[in-house]
Amino acid sequence: MAATITAFDHSPDRGRGLARDMRVRWALEEVGQPYTVLSVPWAAMKHPDHRARNPFGQIPTFHEGDLALFESGAIVLHIAERHGGLLPDDASARARAIAWMFAALNTVEPPVVELSMAFLVERDQPWYEARRPMLVERVQARLRELSDHLGNADWLDGAFSAGDLLMVTVLRRLGSTGLLDGYPTLAAYIARAEARPAYARAFAAQLAAFNAAS
Amino acid sequence: MAATITAFDHSPDRGRGLARDMRVRWALEEVGQPYTVLSVPWAAMKHPDHRARNPFGQIPTFHEGDLALFESGAIVLHIAERHGGLLPDDASARARAIAWMFAALNTVEPPVVELSMAFLVERDQPWYEARRPMLVERVQARLRELSDHLGNADWLDGAFSAGDLLMVTVLRRLGSTGLLDGYPTLAAYIARAEARPAYARAFAAQLAAFNAAS
Repeated sequence: MAATITAFDHSPDRGRGLARDMRVRWALEEVGQPYTVLSVPWAAMKHPDHRARNPFGQIPTFHEGDLALFESGAIVLHIAERHGGLLPDDASARARAIAWMFAALNTVEPPVVELSMAFLVERDQPWYEARRPMLVERVQARLRELSDHLGNADWLDGAFSAGDLLMVTVLRRLGSTGLLDGYPTLAAYIARAEARPAYARAFAAQLAAFNAAS
Repeated sequence: MAATITAFDHSPDRGRGLARDMRVRWALEEVGQPYTVLSVPWAAMKHPDHRARNPFGQIPTFHEGDLALFESGAIVLHIAERHGGLLPDDASARARAIAWMFAALNTVEPPVVELSMAFLVERDQPWYEARRPMLVERVQARLRELSDHLGNADWLDGAFSAGDLLMVTVLRRLGSTGLLDGYPTLAAYIARAEARPAYARAFAAQLAAFNAAS
């Protein structure tokens, strides 16, 4: 039985693949599993029907048989545990790949989201310019650390894993900031991920959904 | 072989159990596994020796045999996967408990940290009072959603799980804000967790470490 995921019917990122359904689409493409998409209108995200899927009223959600999940990180981990290709077989390497999943979502993503949210909702406020260097430095600290860790390696820890998948989706949110220009190692890392056929299929699918709704 | 974790030698929370080693101590107590603690002085967190354990220079880290992990969420999941007591046996219930782990760290914790960081580093800035209602509302939205979900249940999804463990550690960071006073359901949820013997042992251990360093 194919899984069903929910996604925006008209993503505010205008099809740039920055909404969190992209992570789940990409994971499903990496492991070669089909899926169907249930579009959720922006206005319906906080309605009781959608909150029954996710108490926080967010996308994506994941439904397969009688299993219903929310949280993109948990959904990607669930997919990675059930199908080969996103987690190493060796137990220690597998645990380290999962550590990178949490690092992407709990250590790197928060300052990235804080910076982008400030731009979205505070850029006309008198304090915006005064605060921005602090927010940028919080992101830069994580970029330096990540770049230092990566060094000459292709991926964060051995082969491509669900940790890389989540980390790349987090870093891509910085695309419009110019901050990645200072980290050629990370820019190349993102490009390497975007060159994967599974990424390309997932990106095309979410862009087609955006275009169809426009 | 007992695991070794790293923790602050003198936590800035002054022994209130808000540093992220508390999550790992609590998880190890829940599953009945012994551990030893390697104290890391605050000034050594960003040194190469500690970055070899965690590229982002944070605590806790976890070492057992030749496995080295970082990210508190990943460490708790690793412990929960290897020992009984923190994840249900049923596969669907297990996946949902893991979803709550990610919800705690990726949906609830970011606005909580943003509010507490603003207090720590921006409270003397002229914009602090103007911005605070926005930050508080971001937290309140999550508290309302979580309280609505919890309802009359003891725990987030069936029996106590690693999802509850992480969620409670996130909510406890709000203790000094007074925001939990508006959510008796959540205050009772936290109290229920704090009443667990494993929690009490973990809390006592981190407090003893703080007192010994003071």
